[in-house]
Amino acid sequence: MPENRDLVVTFIDSLEARDWMTWADLLHPEVVYEVPQTRERIRGRDRYLQFNQEYPGDWHLRLEVAIADEVNGVAWFRWELPEAEPADGMAFFTFAEGQIATVTDFWPEPYEPPPGREHLVERW
Amino acid sequence: MPENRDLVVTFIDSLEARDWMTWADLLHPEVVYEVPQTRERIRGRDRYLQFNQEYPGDWHLRLEVAIADEVNGVAWFRWELPEAEPADGMAFFTFAEGQIATVTDFWPEPYEPPPGREHLVERW
Repeated sequence: MPENRDLVVTFIDSLEARDWMTWADLLHPEVVYEVPQTRERIRGRDRYLQFNQEYPGDWHLRLEVAIADEVNGVAWFRWELPEAEPADGMAFFTFAEGQIATVTDFWPEPYEPPPGREHLVERW
Repeated sequence: MPENRDLVVTFIDSLEARDWMTWADLLHPEVVYEVPQTRERIRGRDRYLQFNQEYPGDWHLRLEVAIADEVNGVAWFRWELPEAEPADGMAFFTFAEGQIATVTDFWPEPYEPPPGREHLVERW
């Protein structure tokens, strides 16, 4: 659904721009934000806005992939900080009444591959 | 694009079923599989099939969300092992000639939240 994909793209772009008015307008007032890796949840647009405004560091977002249908959406983005390797992040979305109803973030970290698959794998 | 979403759903379902014939038929012969967290890459359907057939453990997949358009797709799934907490995994896809051309996996791990946001967050 193109309209929902636009919500996903604008979510990332307005966050990158710190365009808080545009960003907050995308969100349902009762939006629920979750981070399953830390088991954290933030309820409501006002708190979620404050969370992002208070988030420390000169972080930047670069969208890699945005996909959406009538029900679900996703953004895969690069998360960049001045003194760190860029990292991948993913945000999954659901939609309600033309706005974003839920956001679920994932922040995968680098790890060493387990042994036993070197015969199939190349590293970069 | 419903056809591409079907590829995503069948990818997870046939992997869960160890239905290797169905699973391999979804893949382009030149499929490229990548795990950015470990900087691992596997080239070609035969090696990628062998990688999955050799993967140890009584693992199970439960699809949470599948989305796809003409270009990109994603599966968010639960990864379950007998003696571990279920974990979230994501696979991003691209498509070529009605098959899966690339698969990029992410495996986020639990972590402790940084301090300073307790005034906005609830834990579960």
